[in-house]
Amino acid sequence: MRSLPLSRVYQLLEPGPVVLLTTSRGGRPNVMTQSWHMMVEFEPPLIACVVSDRGYSFAALRATRECVIAVPDRKLARKVVAVGNCSGADRDKFAACGLTPRPARQVAAPLVAECFANLECKVIDTRLVRRYNLFILQVLAAWTDPSQQNPKTIHHHGYGRFTVDGRTFRLKSRMK
Amino acid sequence: MRSLPLSRVYQLLEPGPVVLLTTSRGGRPNVMTQSWHMMVEFEPPLIACVVSDRGYSFAALRATRECVIAVPDRKLARKVVAVGNCSGADRDKFAACGLTPRPARQVAAPLVAECFANLECKVIDTRLVRRYNLFILQVLAAWTDPSQQNPKTIHHHGYGRFTVDGRTFRLKSRMK
Repeated sequence: MRSLPLSRVYQLLEPGPVVLLTTSRGGRPNVMTQSWHMMVEFEPPLIACVVSDRGYSFAALRATRECVIAVPDRKLARKVVAVGNCSGADRDKFAACGLTPRPARQVAAPLVAECFANLECKVIDTRLVRRYNLFILQVLAAWTDPSQQNPKTIHHHGYGRFTVDGRTFRLKSRMK
Repeated sequence: MRSLPLSRVYQLLEPGPVVLLTTSRGGRPNVMTQSWHMMVEFEPPLIACVVSDRGYSFAALRATRECVIAVPDRKLARKVVAVGNCSGADRDKFAACGLTPRPARQVAAPLVAECFANLECKVIDTRLVRRYNLFILQVLAAWTDPSQQNPKTIHHHGYGRFTVDGRTFRLKSRMK
């Protein structure tokens, strides 16, 4: 994994990819599938995400205030959906879904070795957790896998329907 | 425009498209380009979005507590980027960018006639506005253009680089 400048983190999440969110509580890692996230600030990168309070990850995130957001390439789509189809309450989802946890540097939650990008995050604001399950995260460290060139992400349209990134184009823009 | 069931709104925004956000203040409509949004609840649909406080739309959204989120097909990409490249402080951006405002039903902010989907929204929570410019919106009404079949959205990767929706696939998922 190669370190990614924090100023470039938004370029990963702004396009709306399906991501994995990992936690670790009491030495027990877990992973969930996630599409309800957005950028909040460029640098330091802040992210908002909604984590269902019916899942095992919610309690871990609220208690530990740490997580990793990992971005999978389309080749991992089956594993990503498998993660979304089972609960961490009764199994090791990494083993069950064929994913590999790797130690992060600043948080207890694990990186996902197979993902092309991993963001180590801490919770910095919980004011909207009670009402909306909405956490504000700050990215502490960001990693990319240099062996995965030109990754293509997937985007969820509901009920297991996904689109894959298609062609790329550029338009002269004043937008960052 | 055809009415869209509110239960299906999340299928439009969850994949992370670039959208337009319109406001109307003192009878003056405005429009901005937006990628920092996410779903917060399925039904009634709640959306979080971050609107820069350096733009003209921020003051209008805060004052009127209403907006429309409009989803453009890729064919509108040049107009969408043009919207992002100028300010509403000194011009009518609809006219300047070749977009057509249409009256909405429940809010003063206009629909964008050229977009394949339009969501009428009211601001329901401003607790995170001061610190993060983050608004919580509730979708009051949703419209789609039945003449635009199989629209493809665009996703922003920073500095005017975009991807277009590519192929679609399905995987058996318990996720909504």
